[in-house]
Amino acid sequence: MNVAEPSLTRAVVLLSGGLDSSTLLHYVCRRLGVGEVHALSYFYGQKHSRELDMAKWQAAAAGAAEHMVIDLGFFAGLTAGGSALTDPDIPVPDMQAVREEDREQPPTYVPNRNMILLSLAAAFAESRGIADVFYGAQAQDEYGYWDCTAEFLRRINRVLSLNRRRPVTIHAPFIAMRKADELRLGRELGVDYAHTWTCYRGATVPCGTCPACAERRAAFRELGIPDPLAT
Amino acid sequence: MNVAEPSLTRAVVLLSGGLDSSTLLHYVCRRLGVGEVHALSYFYGQKHSRELDMAKWQAAAAGAAEHMVIDLGFFAGLTAGGSALTDPDIPVPDMQAVREEDREQPPTYVPNRNMILLSLAAAFAESRGIADVFYGAQAQDEYGYWDCTAEFLRRINRVLSLNRRRPVTIHAPFIAMRKADELRLGRELGVDYAHTWTCYRGATVPCGTCPACAERRAAFRELGIPDPLAT
Repeated sequence: MNVAEPSLTRAVVLLSGGLDSSTLLHYVCRRLGVGEVHALSYFYGQKHSRELDMAKWQAAAAGAAEHMVIDLGFFAGLTAGGSALTDPDIPVPDMQAVREEDREQPPTYVPNRNMILLSLAAAFAESRGIADVFYGAQAQDEYGYWDCTAEFLRRINRVLSLNRRRPVTIHAPFIAMRKADELRLGRELGVDYAHTWTCYRGATVPCGTCPACAERRAAFRELGIPDPLAT
Repeated sequence: MNVAEPSLTRAVVLLSGGLDSSTLLHYVCRRLGVGEVHALSYFYGQKHSRELDMAKWQAAAAGAAEHMVIDLGFFAGLTAGGSALTDPDIPVPDMQAVREEDREQPPTYVPNRNMILLSLAAAFAESRGIADVFYGAQAQDEYGYWDCTAEFLRRINRVLSLNRRRPVTIHAPFIAMRKADELRLGRELGVDYAHTWTCYRGATVPCGTCPACAERRAAFRELGIPDPLAT
């Protein structure tokens, strides 16, 4: 657990509305007992922007002091042709169709997205005089993104530590955890997973076969409980 | 000179429309002979958004293949109360009124702006299959920003180097140069400084007294030439 302050009173939580970040939000509020939580979400042109409705619901459920959704509407143009998550011409693949050689950087990778989102979160925190940001990176079971690793986070924090007046630290308490373990934790915390969204495809019900769905389903299966979204 | 490739054919240049980045653009095109330059500018709520008109002019003058202006209109809200450059309630100070204790992080500092802008530039480059980004950080004569230093850039590049498929490197060839030396170089390259904008205040003529104007004027004075904007 890489939480700097045992008695943290204010924090920023990056909240996508998915399983990881929703669990994290409740973890920060309830387990860490942080009294003033500012949740931050992004619209970056993701096909599954439905997750933002879930983020809003979770922020209210957790009693967040603030929930800001930043519109990065330019993102799809900036990274045109860059990702299956944002480009209508690049279909989201099924998990089983992701080729072995693509596992290191799959088509659902969005160019440099996490560095951008963490940079914005640090600015958001710094402006509010908040020193701690939480984000829900977890150990990827099936494939990895270079910008979800512990080394990536360590290097981001090395940049932010140069700030002379108000350095911000980014924490990822789940970075070594598997999704099933997060789910177990979230259920202890009373997280309502009916109000989370995971599927990368833009439909109103989860496809069940994209990489994100496949990971989520495996976690529920491992715990032997039904996914409320899969019924 | 920290240019990785002696025979660079494609590059991204961060172009604010100020003296530093305009000089850099022409340096990359003419001195380095990069044939395909993609210029990138940002509107982040700066009072001196007039600089973007100058960026457009310079991109055309340099024969850039593309000039994209990204609207980060949310920025002032994200960093509310954070900077004299974006907040209407915080006046831009005169250079001589910047207190000694503020020189390390003056009121014109925008929270984490440079990390955000460089992260976006890296995404922009990566999406286009371009490996090299140039930005116009220079040795600050009068005061320093933590996010303009060589160490900051080194650490940003340490993050980006983790990208397995398409790592991007950010170069700041002027980072150890004084503004007067940049100006001397720019004049050799034929840069037209009448089409650059420096003043932090939002007026139609430079105030002459804000920190940015003070630095610019000192550079022209040192070379013993008139600033075309000051006439």
